[in-house]
Amino acid sequence: MNITKISAEDRRFKLEAGAGSDAVHSDPVYSFAVTRIVLDSGLAGTGLVLTMGRGNDLVCGAIELLGQQLKGRDIEELMANFGVTFRKLADDVQLRWLGPHKGVVHLALASITNACFDLWTKSRGVPLWKLLLSLSPAEVVQLLDLSYLEDVLNHSEALQLLTAELPSRVSREGVLTTGYPGYDTSVGWYQYDAAQIEDKVKRSLDEGFGAFKLKVGGPLDHDLARAQGLRKVAGEKVTIMFDANQQWNLPQALVACKELGAFRPLWIEEPTHPDDIFAHQTLAKAIAPLALALGEHVPNRVIFKNYLQSGCVGFLQPDCTRLGGISEFITVSLLAKKFGVPVIPHVGDMGQIHQHLVLFNRIAIGHPEEFLEYIPHLSSHFVHPVDLRDGRYQTPQEAGSSTDLL
Amino acid sequence: MNITKISAEDRRFKLEAGAGSDAVHSDPVYSFAVTRIVLDSGLAGTGLVLTMGRGNDLVCGAIELLGQQLKGRDIEELMANFGVTFRKLADDVQLRWLGPHKGVVHLALASITNACFDLWTKSRGVPLWKLLLSLSPAEVVQLLDLSYLEDVLNHSEALQLLTAELPSRVSREGVLTTGYPGYDTSVGWYQYDAAQIEDKVKRSLDEGFGAFKLKVGGPLDHDLARAQGLRKVAGEKVTIMFDANQQWNLPQALVACKELGAFRPLWIEEPTHPDDIFAHQTLAKAIAPLALALGEHVPNRVIFKNYLQSGCVGFLQPDCTRLGGISEFITVSLLAKKFGVPVIPHVGDMGQIHQHLVLFNRIAIGHPEEFLEYIPHLSSHFVHPVDLRDGRYQTPQEAGSSTDLL
Repeated sequence: MNITKISAEDRRFKLEAGAGSDAVHSDPVYSFAVTRIVLDSGLAGTGLVLTMGRGNDLVCGAIELLGQQLKGRDIEELMANFGVTFRKLADDVQLRWLGPHKGVVHLALASITNACFDLWTKSRGVPLWKLLLSLSPAEVVQLLDLSYLEDVLNHSEALQLLTAELPSRVSREGVLTTGYPGYDTSVGWYQYDAAQIEDKVKRSLDEGFGAFKLKVGGPLDHDLARAQGLRKVAGEKVTIMFDANQQWNLPQALVACKELGAFRPLWIEEPTHPDDIFAHQTLAKAIAPLALALGEHVPNRVIFKNYLQSGCVGFLQPDCTRLGGISEFITVSLLAKKFGVPVIPHVGDMGQIHQHLVLFNRIAIGHPEEFLEYIPHLSSHFVHPVDLRDGRYQTPQEAGSSTDLL
Repeated sequence: MNITKISAEDRRFKLEAGAGSDAVHSDPVYSFAVTRIVLDSGLAGTGLVLTMGRGNDLVCGAIELLGQQLKGRDIEELMANFGVTFRKLADDVQLRWLGPHKGVVHLALASITNACFDLWTKSRGVPLWKLLLSLSPAEVVQLLDLSYLEDVLNHSEALQLLTAELPSRVSREGVLTTGYPGYDTSVGWYQYDAAQIEDKVKRSLDEGFGAFKLKVGGPLDHDLARAQGLRKVAGEKVTIMFDANQQWNLPQALVACKELGAFRPLWIEEPTHPDDIFAHQTLAKAIAPLALALGEHVPNRVIFKNYLQSGCVGFLQPDCTRLGGISEFITVSLLAKKFGVPVIPHVGDMGQIHQHLVLFNRIAIGHPEEFLEYIPHLSSHFVHPVDLRDGRYQTPQEAGSSTDLL
C-alpha cells in the first residue's frame, strides 16, 4: 500500500450568470486544484482546494513541488501520525518562505492532505466520517499538528477534550440517521436581483430549507433593500444571514452592521479584512448581541487561535480547503470547542468533505448541531454529489471523502 | 513612455556553506523572482522579491499573471496615483482568493511594484531616494493604498504626518553625506561555529561595524553559549541582537528570552510564529523592558496595524520584498510613525532598495536614525551593489532603485 504517484490537475468550471458573485468576487470561476495520489495497488485518492479561477495553476504547481516528498510512503504508516508529516510539509525549509502557512503553498498542502485522507479512507473501504469516528482520541490527536498552540491547546488537552466526549457520543449518533441540516447560500448571490432572489428562496423553502444567506457589501441603501426583500419573502421565522465578503472597512462596518441588524440576521459574515483581528474585536463589541461569523479566509490554526482569544467570533467558519486540509480543520474544531464557539464550516469543497466533518464535530467533539452551508452549482461534476432531502444532508455511505470528480 | 513588456525571471544563487542559515531555514538558496518592465523607449525597470529557492518559479508565474494588466500604461500616469493601481492588482477578483494580500500573489505584487518604482526613477534619471524626497506630501500619499487602515490612518492623517515634517527636513539631510549606519547580520548565521563567529566579528569590527546579529533558536544551552561567545568577542559596548526566526512556541519563548536577556541584546527578533499577535503581546509584557523586533514575515499593512495596536513591537522590520513593495513599505512606515515605533527594515533585497527607503523614512517621515541590516552574500551579482564604508551605507547616486542584476 505504498504511494507511487502524486500529481495535480487544474479543473475550472464556468458558473451561470451571477452565481457565486459577492461584493468582492465579481467574476468567480469555481476551480479546484486537485491532488491525485495513487497507491501501488492502483487505488487513487482525490484532494481538493477551491480557487476562483486565475492562479489555480499556481496551486497545482505547488502541489507538484510539495507532494513528491510523500512518494514511497505506506498509507497506513503515513496516517498513523500524520501530524508529523503535516508539520514537515508545512515547514519545508525553502517553500515555507512563501507563506508561512498561508497562500498558495498552504492551499497546496490542503489539497495534498485531503487526498491523503481520501486515499486512507478508500483503502479502509469506509466513508470518511466513519473512519474518523472509529479512531481513538489518541489516534485522532496523532493526525494533528498542534505546534504554536501550546499556550492554549497542547497534546494532552486535545486528548482530554476528545476523551471527555466518549461517554455521551451515543446520544449524538441520531444525526447519522436524520441527516445534518443545511442552509442555502445559493439564493442570495450579489448579482441576483430581487425577482431572482424571491424565486430562488421560494423554491428553496419548498425543498425544505429553513435558513438562507444574502450577499451584501454594496451601497448601504441597496443592501438594506435587499435585506428587507429577503426577510419579506422568507418570512419572519426563517433564519437569515448576511455576508459582506470583507468589503467594508471598520467605520463602514460599524454603520452597516447596526442598520442591517434591524432584519434580525443570525450573523454578519466577513464584515472586513480577514487579517484584521482588532477591527473585528471592536466591531463585535459595538454590535453585540448581533454576532459575527468568519473563517473562510483564515488560513491557519494560529490565526484562528488569535481570533478565538480576541472574543469576537460568534460562529467559526473554518474550511478544510483554506486551512491545510482535514487535519487542520479538526485542530481548529478542537480549539473552537475549548473556547465554546460553534463551528459552521465554509464549504469551498461544496460540502463534499465537510458533510463528513460536521458529523465528526457533532459526535466526537460534542459541538452543537448547527447547519452546513449548501452551494449546489458544481454538483453535476462529482461522482457522489451531496444528497439533500428536506433541507438535510443525507449521511454519505460511499467509501472515501466524496471528492472524486467526473 | 508606455509599458510594452512585462516579464519574470527566476534567479537563484547558491550560498557558501552555512551562510544564510537560521533555526528554521536550514538550506537557503537566496533567490529573486525578478520583474522586468520595459518602456517603448527601451528603458527597463527591475523589481525584486526574495525567496529561499524552491517555489521561486511560482512567484514568477504569478508575476506573469498579474503584471499583464499594466501593459500600455504610461509610467508617469501610472505613478501619479499608484495607490489606485496597487489596490486593483491586490484585489484582482480571481487571484485575490489565493491571498488575500499574502503569500505568492502578494510577493508577485511586490516584485511588480518595485519594478514600477525602479522604472519610474530611471525615467526621471535620479536615485529612488531623491525622487521620493522630491515629492510633495500629497504626491507621496497618492502612491499609497490606505484601504483597511481608515480606523487608524486615513488619507488626511497620512498627509498631515508628512506635512508636519516638512519644516524640519533640512536638519535631517546630513545623513545623505554621512551615510546611514549598518549592522552586520552575516557574522552569526545559525550553522557558523564559535570560531567562525569570532573570526567574522573581528573582521566586521575592523570594517567599522558596531552592531551584530546572532541566530538563536536551538537548544537553550547552545543558544546561551553562542550568545556568551558573541558578547565576549564583540565586547561589552557593542550592540548585539538575537534572532530566533519563529522557532519557539510561546512557553519556550518566555523561558529563552528571559535567559538570553542576560546578554543585554537590543532586541529579540521573531521569537515565535509571525501570525501570533497575542503570543507576541504576552511575551512583550513578560520580558519588558527587553524589546521584540518583528516584521520580516508580516505580509501586509493590515497585520502591521494589528501588531502596532497590540503594543508589542519594540522595533518594526517591514521588508519591501515581503510587503507589496515600496509603496506598502512607505504605508507601514507612516503607521509606525503614528505609533511611535522605530523602523529597521529586514533586507530581503540585500539592502539595495532599503538603503533608499531608510533615507526617505529619516528625512521625510522623521523617523529616528537607526541602522540598516547588512547581508553581503549577493553583492557580486548586482550592477550597483551597496557600498559600505566605516560600517555606513554610502548614499547611492545611480538612477533607479539599485536593483539591476548582472
